[in-house]
Amino acid sequence: MKINQAFFRTIWPVVEGGAVEIIDQTQLPHRLHIVRLDTVEAMVYAIKHMQVRGAPLIGAAAAYGMALGLAAAQDDAHMARIAAMLLESRPTAVNLRWAVQRMQDKLMPMPPEMRQAAAWQEAAAICDEDVALNQAIGQHGVRMLQALATTKGRGHAGRPLHILTHCNAGWLATVDWGTALAPIYQAHNAGIPIHVWVDETRPRNQGAALTAWELAQHGVPHTIISDNAGGHLMQHGQVDCVIVGADRVTATGDVCNKIGTYLKALAAHDNAVPFYAAVPSPTIDWGMQDGLREIPIEERDADEVHYMQGVTAEGALHRVRVTPPSSAAANPAFDVTPARLVTGIITEKGIASPGALHALFHAASQG
Amino acid sequence: MKINQAFFRTIWPVVEGGAVEIIDQTQLPHRLHIVRLDTVEAMVYAIKHMQVRGAPLIGAAAAYGMALGLAAAQDDAHMARIAAMLLESRPTAVNLRWAVQRMQDKLMPMPPEMRQAAAWQEAAAICDEDVALNQAIGQHGVRMLQALATTKGRGHAGRPLHILTHCNAGWLATVDWGTALAPIYQAHNAGIPIHVWVDETRPRNQGAALTAWELAQHGVPHTIISDNAGGHLMQHGQVDCVIVGADRVTATGDVCNKIGTYLKALAAHDNAVPFYAAVPSPTIDWGMQDGLREIPIEERDADEVHYMQGVTAEGALHRVRVTPPSSAAANPAFDVTPARLVTGIITEKGIASPGALHALFHAASQG
Repeated sequence: MKINQAFFRTIWPVVEGGAVEIIDQTQLPHRLHIVRLDTVEAMVYAIKHMQVRGAPLIGAAAAYGMALGLAAAQDDAHMARIAAMLLESRPTAVNLRWAVQRMQDKLMPMPPEMRQAAAWQEAAAICDEDVALNQAIGQHGVRMLQALATTKGRGHAGRPLHILTHCNAGWLATVDWGTALAPIYQAHNAGIPIHVWVDETRPRNQGAALTAWELAQHGVPHTIISDNAGGHLMQHGQVDCVIVGADRVTATGDVCNKIGTYLKALAAHDNAVPFYAAVPSPTIDWGMQDGLREIPIEERDADEVHYMQGVTAEGALHRVRVTPPSSAAANPAFDVTPARLVTGIITEKGIASPGALHALFHAASQG
Repeated sequence: MKINQAFFRTIWPVVEGGAVEIIDQTQLPHRLHIVRLDTVEAMVYAIKHMQVRGAPLIGAAAAYGMALGLAAAQDDAHMARIAAMLLESRPTAVNLRWAVQRMQDKLMPMPPEMRQAAAWQEAAAICDEDVALNQAIGQHGVRMLQALATTKGRGHAGRPLHILTHCNAGWLATVDWGTALAPIYQAHNAGIPIHVWVDETRPRNQGAALTAWELAQHGVPHTIISDNAGGHLMQHGQVDCVIVGADRVTATGDVCNKIGTYLKALAAHDNAVPFYAAVPSPTIDWGMQDGLREIPIEERDADEVHYMQGVTAEGALHRVRVTPPSSAAANPAFDVTPARLVTGIITEKGIASPGALHALFHAASQG
């Protein structure tokens, strides 16, 4: 998507080869800082310190990490070593494991001298596949938005379709397009007047910092709100639809996503606002039936609640403590929205109600 | 309640007379700064800049503002002038209007030379009445908490009763005790083991800044959470009860309170967690039937969303921007929780379900 009028992805190999570039997402929205990475160590640092984040982007980054690491040596032992380094950079990231495994499965059978070139090719393929998946999600989603606009008499000049989103499931979390934001970008590109309510998304502020920034750069009308405001807006008819991403979706359609998603789903349900999760199919965990009981919820560092990062009037980036030093904080990072509150799951194969999710993929695999 | 082991109110006349002292709440939780006010102009500044805030405290502050203003002159025209100054300091504050009116009604019939002493007396009476109201709310509330602890097998060593609160309806918002926190302080003082989940309460952070600070100072166990976390905690049985304050309650029991309250009420309802609003009876608007339609919601400055205040590692107080400069923000300050989600209203007369609120006061007035 666009930054300063030019099209970008979140990760790309440099023209001269031997390195990739990323956008340092820890500096956003305050500074656009492009970082060049030319070793696997640099990539491990970038993943660990969340310069790159978002499940699909972490997978792509790990794949390029393998390619970078093979510059030093190409034998089996070295490849196992760099794979282990990458896996340890964020131990719970499913996409990271998947990408490293895929790279190893591809490269291991090859003679060592062919591995380096093949690694760059495979990492590029992983990126392109992510873009294609998200684009397909966007195409299904935009048809839903178009239908909603027609039903509600919205989506024309003066009456934009109002979509609320939580956290960042935009192109910055993927290689391009995003998941929850893919339908929004495609609607915008197609000229459907839309407006996005962007949940701030405490405690890490991915909404205020990343979603708002990427929508602004691409020119999509949007307004930042505190996480507390969405229910009130829905009560007053100011939200036509909610679209979020997800970290995991069960076979039954329970949606595990950033903490606070469940509260928005409750409000959407209470006000008859459709609530969608947009996910590529690898995010669906077909082995899970009950998200609330089965999905472990990560408890993150309390300092994410205690501290906030921002810029002073002089432009200096500061981290300030917003809580009293004598108070503890708790920081569960995700919650589970039960399927009964979910209108539909938007996937690359189409949109299914939670109960029809299995059939959507089962029928497709037979077709 | 306690600060550094000593008992305080939020406003008090100095021993030598002619001035009052307040805690500058804009500096909390980072600095405990006591401010001495000896003119009506100083009080207007304190109210306008929210050094004092919370409906009951603003009423008490305005009453003392009248007393301070009468030092310069005691005639009718001067009294009307200082009343007008105070009314303009926060035009929408109902308690402020009420307190100024009460002071005028008391003082106007008196000969001017008696007015100054009477004003100090009346302001003190307003303070003492607020304390008595809140103490009565606390007494009714603590009986409810005691019963809940018994039912749930909580409230003994190792299994504290977990109470979630939103915003600051503590003693800092009143003259003493608070409204939502009055039952909590009384439970704590009575030795019932309790633990409070403190919603951060974006965008003004009254939970993280004020509620956490006052609970810490009084020694009540508590944990700060982002506003997003409460639903998840309720899903996992970690909240036994929600108690909030209110800016206005309708005759039918709709609760207008700080933005985000509605989301917590939805989650409480979805998880069978009792949800209470604690209010003194002047907060009940007997003329209103439908809170969602009738209560106007203040839209506050977007900068409250864009900026956060905190201290750096060096202890300097900084205001930092947390959003991209190209993004707008919306800031509705309150929302309305429909009566159907409210278990009970805790008042100085007792606790009533929303439908029985009118009967509670009607019966009491006949008794």
